[in-house]
Amino acid sequence: MVRKRLHDPVDGRPTVHTVAARAGVSIASASRVLNGLGASDETIRKVRAAAAEVGYVPNAIARSLQSQRTGLVALAVEDIGNPVYVAMMRAIEAVVASSGRQLVVHATGGHIPSETALLRRLANRYVDGMIVSPIRVTNDHLTAMIESPVPVVVIGQLREDAPVDNVRTDSRTGVGLAVDHLVATGRRRIGFVNGPLDTVPGAARDAGFRAALAGHGIEPDERLIEVGDFQYAAGRAAAERLLARATPDALLCANDLIAVGALHALLAGGRRVPHDVALVGMDDTELAQMMFPQLSSVSLGSAERGRRAAELLLQRIAEPALPPRREHVPPALSVRASSEPVAAGPAA
Amino acid sequence: MVRKRLHDPVDGRPTVHTVAARAGVSIASASRVLNGLGASDETIRKVRAAAAEVGYVPNAIARSLQSQRTGLVALAVEDIGNPVYVAMMRAIEAVVASSGRQLVVHATGGHIPSETALLRRLANRYVDGMIVSPIRVTNDHLTAMIESPVPVVVIGQLREDAPVDNVRTDSRTGVGLAVDHLVATGRRRIGFVNGPLDTVPGAARDAGFRAALAGHGIEPDERLIEVGDFQYAAGRAAAERLLARATPDALLCANDLIAVGALHALLAGGRRVPHDVALVGMDDTELAQMMFPQLSSVSLGSAERGRRAAELLLQRIAEPALPPRREHVPPALSVRASSEPVAAGPAA
Repeated sequence: MVRKRLHDPVDGRPTVHTVAARAGVSIASASRVLNGLGASDETIRKVRAAAAEVGYVPNAIARSLQSQRTGLVALAVEDIGNPVYVAMMRAIEAVVASSGRQLVVHATGGHIPSETALLRRLANRYVDGMIVSPIRVTNDHLTAMIESPVPVVVIGQLREDAPVDNVRTDSRTGVGLAVDHLVATGRRRIGFVNGPLDTVPGAARDAGFRAALAGHGIEPDERLIEVGDFQYAAGRAAAERLLARATPDALLCANDLIAVGALHALLAGGRRVPHDVALVGMDDTELAQMMFPQLSSVSLGSAERGRRAAELLLQRIAEPALPPRREHVPPALSVRASSEPVAAGPAA
Repeated sequence: MVRKRLHDPVDGRPTVHTVAARAGVSIASASRVLNGLGASDETIRKVRAAAAEVGYVPNAIARSLQSQRTGLVALAVEDIGNPVYVAMMRAIEAVVASSGRQLVVHATGGHIPSETALLRRLANRYVDGMIVSPIRVTNDHLTAMIESPVPVVVIGQLREDAPVDNVRTDSRTGVGLAVDHLVATGRRRIGFVNGPLDTVPGAARDAGFRAALAGHGIEPDERLIEVGDFQYAAGRAAAERLLARATPDALLCANDLIAVGALHALLAGGRRVPHDVALVGMDDTELAQMMFPQLSSVSLGSAERGRRAAELLLQRIAEPALPPRREHVPPALSVRASSEPVAAGPAA
């Protein structure tokens, strides 16, 4: 007599066959009920009772319990509207897809409570792992990351002793590349439009700007420095304030959204770019190439950071016991029309 | 004697207390193992055996099985890099968050196999519901949506008889609004830079453009119509081709990414906007306001469509038996500097 295979031959767990046999219904009926596809009340009652009795757990969830295979990887970024995260996401998507998984993206608005809540949600194992790019990592972030049953990789600044994989760039050096370039093209009155100084990116860029000026023997002129936020409208307003009180021959902007705002302020004020004022952004997003003139911009390797973070995550999913890894992606300057050298002499 | 509450008092299911008692370990130890937080091999073995014996299912997953509460809602869009989807996503996020759920976003690249695979994944109930904005809905899409155990709402074109909630706009009428405006400001040689005609958006815009011209007694000039793709670079190249062979006094572009490309082509070619050539885009994204001059653009109500779709989804999660709903969001034109009327007379 052929023994009907009622239990999973691999791990002996009850399967839909087990449930169907116990309920006295067909496999098809049991399957419909267990997948929530609807059936008669009587059938639903019988199948659910049988499932409870035999301890049945649906396959997808059993996989999630047994082998950490939700098949999903999460990415949490501050703002999907910032093209720098788009580049990062596309690179991550490519790596995740090649591993047969699906990427899910969360936008946190940069709100620490939202970020930490997401990290704590990992206790439910709703994904196989998560990549986060927080503006600032607090103790609450760290605790949630360490307690997470699935791996987390941080893109951005992280305490050296944090037992979490990390990929970072060096925006301080990146700002220096931009200043060096502007000085090399003959500019000396270099303005700087930054984001808030009480953020990690803002503070790093400010320090990098002052250090770079010092390296060229240029005294920082506080009237040439303005602070807003890392967004278009705030960048435009900050540039307008700066231009109302000073006459820079160049503007370095802390990201491309600010640079686009500064471009608007410059053109609306009748200044020509690069002839009157050179312009350089940061992040080297698609936006920089879409402008006219195209914007020079410092790449902080967003796509590369995403790619490496995704690879570190997949490695740790496969080998949880690896020591924490630290990777650095160097900045690079893309020079375009907005900061070209211009002929010496008075404006025409 | 006080009876220890070993089983869930609400539904009688085995709890971590049940498992701990069966395994002969503390609640804390049982909880650590069941949450994948690590314990001695012996403890892990005892707890897992006990869990299987009593038919324990972790709370989050039990909730998922019993009450469809993953607490997640998915949004699947073609391309996170297009700012029109950013606006839609932000509106959806607000509604989803107010219901206490978390939004997860998928970028499908507009690939039908990716879109249908995502819809089929819903069989695993990994989210409580999904909003999709596909470029084109095929029978495979429809089948997966109908078979999904959780609700799906479609933003975009959908067959009238499809038993799925739907929110759509009217891009054909939207194109008409732009043409009417350009004619009203004195333009007659209106060029049109579109996306592929074998897409639903491309076909609708082409039909709307020709109908609008006819309404004004203007014969379409095929040399003033060019087709590329719904992206910046393709839009720029298409505009360049058009400008190489014709002299429009206005360019209508099928979306803002194309309009930014057209702006670049116009400015690089020494043409002034709006003085020589007026420019109008579609989608009315943040990009339109970031340009100089700011771009007029037809809003297709992306944010409003997102908001309504999220509300329909939440309603259906609460009441699965509602009849399919159809909602329409009308287009509206935002007039900005790029299409201002200009004084009559020869160019200075």
